[in-house]
Amino acid sequence: MQSPTADLCLEGGIEVKGLHIFADLYNCPKAELLTSSEKLRQLCVDACRDVGLTVLGEHFYQFGGAKGLQDGGATGAVVLAESHLAIHTWPESSGATLDVYVCNFTSDNTRKAEAVYAALIKALKPRDVLVERVMRGRDLPLKKRVA
Amino acid sequence: MQSPTADLCLEGGIEVKGLHIFADLYNCPKAELLTSSEKLRQLCVDACRDVGLTVLGEHFYQFGGAKGLQDGGATGAVVLAESHLAIHTWPESSGATLDVYVCNFTSDNTRKAEAVYAALIKALKPRDVLVERVMRGRDLPLKKRVA
Repeated sequence: MQSPTADLCLEGGIEVKGLHIFADLYNCPKAELLTSSEKLRQLCVDACRDVGLTVLGEHFYQFGGAKGLQDGGATGAVVLAESHLAIHTWPESSGATLDVYVCNFTSDNTRKAEAVYAALIKALKPRDVLVERVMRGRDLPLKKRVA
Repeated sequence: MQSPTADLCLEGGIEVKGLHIFADLYNCPKAELLTSSEKLRQLCVDACRDVGLTVLGEHFYQFGGAKGLQDGGATGAVVLAESHLAIHTWPESSGATLDVYVCNFTSDNTRKAEAVYAALIKALKPRDVLVERVMRGRDLPLKKRVA
């Protein structure tokens, strides 16, 4: 899978550049993933490891349901040697926000970022997604000045 | 401090909306913050708590220097009840990337997001910054269809 922004990565060397995919997920039918920090943690950690990213640590938290009327959401972050994954769920809205940011310090990890994102989408099955891709650590307009 | 995107937050209710500030920091002079995961952890956790955000947990990691030629960078994430903060440093480039994402589940936390971001910028003192603000959980174009 090739990101439309991957070419940017090759301009001026890869240094600290890296692809950040940020997505807002709507109408996710699988409530059990939105309401279980443990299932969500396992999903995220496994998705990162499955594509060869290095998990340094993680923290996930289970919210209680508001006013006892609903299941609580879950929230968490996975700290990677290659940057991070973060996810927050709102089961009362069947929604979640997801960030996958994978830097290219030693090699171009763009495909790994896309693969992790695809794995999360496959598991959470949102009907609607707003997703954007940003290349972090871009060359500055002032780069020549400070070179 | 008022974000230029704050008005978006009031369109259609605040539900899961929240301000995500993502910034690439260049030419940071304070190497001791870029090379110490412990100092960086303290800075990030304090900045969140100082503005009244709820820290649920965090994970920071100290990299060793590459080939013994340099101090290693640091990386970490703070999981908040209101979403997350994530930071990754590249001391060899005097750079870092920073994410501050604060949702508006119970109230408009836009000012808290901006205050945390300002605190980190004040501490890290980058000469150059590329920063963008995105409102997460935006109303979908299809919202009426799925309402």
